Amino acid sequence: MQLIDGKAVADQIKQEIAAEVAEIKKNGGKTPHLAVIIVGHDGGSETYVASKVKACEQCGFKSTRLSFESDITEEQLLEQIKMLNEDPDVDGFIVQLPLPKHISEQKVIEAIDYHKDVDGFHPINVGRTSIGLPAFVSATPAGIMELLKRYNIETSGKHCVVIGRSNIVGKPVASLMMQKAFPGDATVTVCHSRTKNLKEITLQADIIIAALGSPKFLTADMVKDGAVIIDVGTTRVPSTQTKSGFKLTGDVDFENVAPKCSFITPVPGGVGPMTICSLMKNTLLAGKKAIYK
Amino acid sequence: MQLIDGKAVADQIKQEIAAEVAEIKKNGGKTPHLAVIIVGHDGGSETYVASKVKACEQCGFKSTRLSFESDITEEQLLEQIKMLNEDPDVDGFIVQLPLPKHISEQKVIEAIDYHKDVDGFHPINVGRTSIGLPAFVSATPAGIMELLKRYNIETSGKHCVVIGRSNIVGKPVASLMMQKAFPGDATVTVCHSRTKNLKEITLQADIIIAALGSPKFLTADMVKDGAVIIDVGTTRVPSTQTKSGFKLTGDVDFENVAPKCSFITPVPGGVGPMTICSLMKNTLLAGKKAIYK
Repeated sequence: MQLIDGKAVADQIKQEIAAEVAEIKKNGGKTPHLAVIIVGHDGGSETYVASKVKACEQCGFKSTRLSFESDITEEQLLEQIKMLNEDPDVDGFIVQLPLPKHISEQKVIEAIDYHKDVDGFHPINVGRTSIGLPAFVSATPAGIMELLKRYNIETSGKHCVVIGRSNIVGKPVASLMMQKAFPGDATVTVCHSRTKNLKEITLQADIIIAALGSPKFLTADMVKDGAVIIDVGTTRVPSTQTKSGFKLTGDVDFENVAPKCSFITPVPGGVGPMTICSLMKNTLLAGKKAIYK
Repeated sequence: MQLIDGKAVADQIKQEIAAEVAEIKKNGGKTPHLAVIIVGHDGGSETYVASKVKACEQCGFKSTRLSFESDITEEQLLEQIKMLNEDPDVDGFIVQLPLPKHISEQKVIEAIDYHKDVDGFHPINVGRTSIGLPAFVSATPAGIMELLKRYNIETSGKHCVVIGRSNIVGKPVASLMMQKAFPGDATVTVCHSRTKNLKEITLQADIIIAALGSPKFLTADMVKDGAVIIDVGTTRVPSTQTKSGFKLTGDVDFENVAPKCSFITPVPGGVGPMTICSLMKNTLLAGKKAIYK
């Protein structure tokens, strides 16, 4: 069994990005600039945004954090987005989810200029990803593809089972895994809450991508020997063993599944660091105008 | 075994559309207007375009056919598209594919204003379909969903196997079948040329959507008893039995597969008529500004 060290890969990629940014600056080019909007004081969101700002520093990017109280109106938030759309210094920006219930996340996502949509949530980036055109690929799926690539994991003709059909992970990663590409070219099955014979299906999988958000859901009896396991779950489970009082827990029963696998991502330190790293990659691409002119 | 009569359903839907259009006209509303661009003299394309123009008549739509010789330049074609984008009388339009090799189909598709993209090929309509937002859904997948709906075929929790991963059928129909909706909520597997154990997978399928374009590819030994078979194939196979000298042939070995099925679409007369009918439906939606304002 080989552990897929997402943290090490992410650090490596951030160094590569930093080197490229240094070169860009040396040649008088523009420093890539990521802006992050955060609404309210959700603990998870605060942590994620802090990590993103820190990653920007590591990459040599400029970053701007815009914080609003949770009573901001949808209209006011859309006005902020408009300003970022029009700000020529901002190459890319994201709105940290989730948002308070009185604000439509979908409206917010669609309000972001797709040229600056480094989270890859805008329909046009989703569509281009599906068609196989250059696009800002949603960060978590992009991170998963990068891990498969850097660990040189064979995907062509393999049976990849995705558990979960969310718009930000399950659907786009399924879409990427079926493309004519490496990584890709896999036979892809998407399972979800309505799937009746899940175990029967996961037992056929060469690659399982678990993205349903249910701690330790995937157990050893559901996995065939030698499978590749990608764990996207990051549920905060209360814990007396940590200072914060909780522990990030994946969708995979790691302890019992790991011995059966050829490759497996841990939680934390697997897909998580790659997500932030993909956001950095997208910001670099936005700064270079590499996807859209 | 029940035959899914796509022609009868399509006739029914066209009557429903015609009734609605008559009502719109009676109330002084605008007659929906579809424009079709055709380049060159490909026999298949000529037939399809003629069918589309005829369907417009049946629905009470206005239609415009714009024909160009195959030596039209990409720039000239894009200019024509721009004119249709800007023409307030044209509610929707399509460019009949395939195009001559010197013209980029993708560039043409992206040049079409997505508000008028009644073929549903523009990335924004593809993305919105995937996310589950209102969109012009690609005509063939939309037609398949309509057949499943009108025949009241259970899809929730069923295992749907899609053979083929094209941008216009395989991928979008997979996307629709996995949505939280009826029809939908299926466990979906997408197979393609790189799939190694296809028969093993199709034998598990409750629903098979064959969209690879290989005549009589799906044989009886690949299908389990009681399966629902949707045949998207329409390959022109030379024939001495028809006046035209060819015969439209599906991807399914109908004669031997049909006896095993619960439902099956014939070729011709199954998915084909529904595709044109979905285009009419999209044109009506465009005319009513029901998807986009």
